[in-house]
Amino acid sequence: KNLLNYKNLGYSVLEMTHRSDAYYEINNTAIANLKQLMNLGDDYDVLFLTGGASSQFFMIPLNLANKDDIAYYALSGIFANKAYEEAKRFINAKIISSSKDDNYNHIAKIDKTQIDKNAKYVHITLNNTIVGTAYNVLPDVGDTTLVGDMSSNILAKNYDFNKFGLIYAGAQKNIGVAGVTIVVIKKSLFNNINSDKLPLMIDYKTHSESCSLYNTPPVFAVYVVMLMTKWVKDRGGIKAMEELNNKKANILYDIIDNSNFYSGTVVNKSDRSSMNVTFVLRNDELTNKFILEAKNNGLVNLKGHKAAGGIRASIYNSMPLEGVLKLADFMNKFENENK
Amino acid sequence: KNLLNYKNLGYSVLEMTHRSDAYYEINNTAIANLKQLMNLGDDYDVLFLTGGASSQFFMIPLNLANKDDIAYYALSGIFANKAYEEAKRFINAKIISSSKDDNYNHIAKIDKTQIDKNAKYVHITLNNTIVGTAYNVLPDVGDTTLVGDMSSNILAKNYDFNKFGLIYAGAQKNIGVAGVTIVVIKKSLFNNINSDKLPLMIDYKTHSESCSLYNTPPVFAVYVVMLMTKWVKDRGGIKAMEELNNKKANILYDIIDNSNFYSGTVVNKSDRSSMNVTFVLRNDELTNKFILEAKNNGLVNLKGHKAAGGIRASIYNSMPLEGVLKLADFMNKFENENK
Repeated sequence: KNLLNYKNLGYSVLEMTHRSDAYYEINNTAIANLKQLMNLGDDYDVLFLTGGASSQFFMIPLNLANKDDIAYYALSGIFANKAYEEAKRFINAKIISSSKDDNYNHIAKIDKTQIDKNAKYVHITLNNTIVGTAYNVLPDVGDTTLVGDMSSNILAKNYDFNKFGLIYAGAQKNIGVAGVTIVVIKKSLFNNINSDKLPLMIDYKTHSESCSLYNTPPVFAVYVVMLMTKWVKDRGGIKAMEELNNKKANILYDIIDNSNFYSGTVVNKSDRSSMNVTFVLRNDELTNKFILEAKNNGLVNLKGHKAAGGIRASIYNSMPLEGVLKLADFMNKFENENK
Repeated sequence: KNLLNYKNLGYSVLEMTHRSDAYYEINNTAIANLKQLMNLGDDYDVLFLTGGASSQFFMIPLNLANKDDIAYYALSGIFANKAYEEAKRFINAKIISSSKDDNYNHIAKIDKTQIDKNAKYVHITLNNTIVGTAYNVLPDVGDTTLVGDMSSNILAKNYDFNKFGLIYAGAQKNIGVAGVTIVVIKKSLFNNINSDKLPLMIDYKTHSESCSLYNTPPVFAVYVVMLMTKWVKDRGGIKAMEELNNKKANILYDIIDNSNFYSGTVVNKSDRSSMNVTFVLRNDELTNKFILEAKNNGLVNLKGHKAAGGIRASIYNSMPLEGVLKLADFMNKFENENK
């Protein structure tokens, strides 16, 4: 309805100027909803940027550290590794933990005693979509600033968000459509930023000072964030989403654990993701048959990432319980017919 | 229809993964349409980025020049000046022409003989929305690379686009919705880029090599560009749009020129924009009355930019002739009642 005529103003939300009361309300409501859902106070700011998580891979080191400063990266997956590779081009980025040599099949522990007290931050990737792991418990990094990439589980898994200095996420998995990047930042970190050397558009302060209205924002994508945050609030908040997501994931993990036909790919059950359930079948032929028959039953996009192979069921917030139950039925049936 | 069920694939264009044949088709069609409309060959690339024209203000100097290199900026308006101010923080940016001291009320000439032969580029802003001026003829910059900000007249005004090394535009005025930035770049310029020092996401080569699919693109915004380029093609291309836009603008300029009641704000008729028709009334009281009565007649957003005052009729591609005729009728009526 609002696509055709936004609140009877006579124009579409797609045509709306961002310099209007109608858009200010969308922007401010989306920010307020996010802060309320994440239980954040006035010491945090929410920014709506663009460029995806990939742009945060360079914006974070360039904003929060100088050339010789140390920051730590936990290599828990392919995107975590990309964040590290980009950061080390600009600052003294070090690896604090890694499961890279094991194809990221677990979450490696972070040893707090290895953290230099002058380090600017520790960067973690909360959910690793390709391999299907997650930080189900936040690591203890002492007094060092914790930075988290929550692109694949924001609003889907509950954490104590006040433990973070900075959280970022591309919107498209759990909180909206592609085209807006959310940055939640503790305001005290603005003191770290050396604006002299930064382009205006990659300086967090530019966007904070203008309430994300320095230049034309991605109006429609922010509008969808506003709708999605309302949707999560109406369903009981992040904790309720997390409970539902755990329930969904456990239906699939139970089948895997009770089967000799399907094998989970994550070595520690405690590291399993509630967003991306990954498993393999005994050979490629059977895997391809699974994907094809699933598709014929209306179950699509189950092929694992090319870097991991096998099967991946991505069950983000938008996947209803019914969809997971349908997949579970299919998995049981397929096992019976092919074991 | 495609918002609810994209080509009967069972999902919305808003949900579509960018790693799909459905999206590759959207992306490739949008690029092909743009190149066809702008009459560009294989020596040009079209990139779909984010961050708006404001991000190009730093990406252009950082990609095309090194710290000590010279580039020239023509100060034809407030955004042209912003582009210059940002560039000079990173390279040896110089002013090649300026109407800043005259509140940008005309397009200052560029003297080709003042261009250093080692300069990396000359930057111009083709249409200046706030004051209502435009380059109706391209300046002669000799063999130096011409860079153009076409945010407010891309697909609306015809030029010889092959005279440019780089053209950029935020999509939201003439070519789609807010959330995608178009960069048209001559491939030979990739040789200028020193990738060693550039973040991956701000390096044009990253996006060229991946066909703008390095990371998740703003899928829906690119989809709308695809639709809009088709729309322009169906209407006869850029030349036909230009003719219609000139016709629309001249209806309003004729009223202004034949009136002692309305005064145009651009000093040279040859510098007038066909996108933003600006004029003033004899005092603020009358201006406010004009805006209010216009609004009551369904004619909205006519208030001039706060930096310019007066009235601004923005008549981009999406404004039909009928809308302009309605404004013309109102202007004549208002003049008769208030002169």
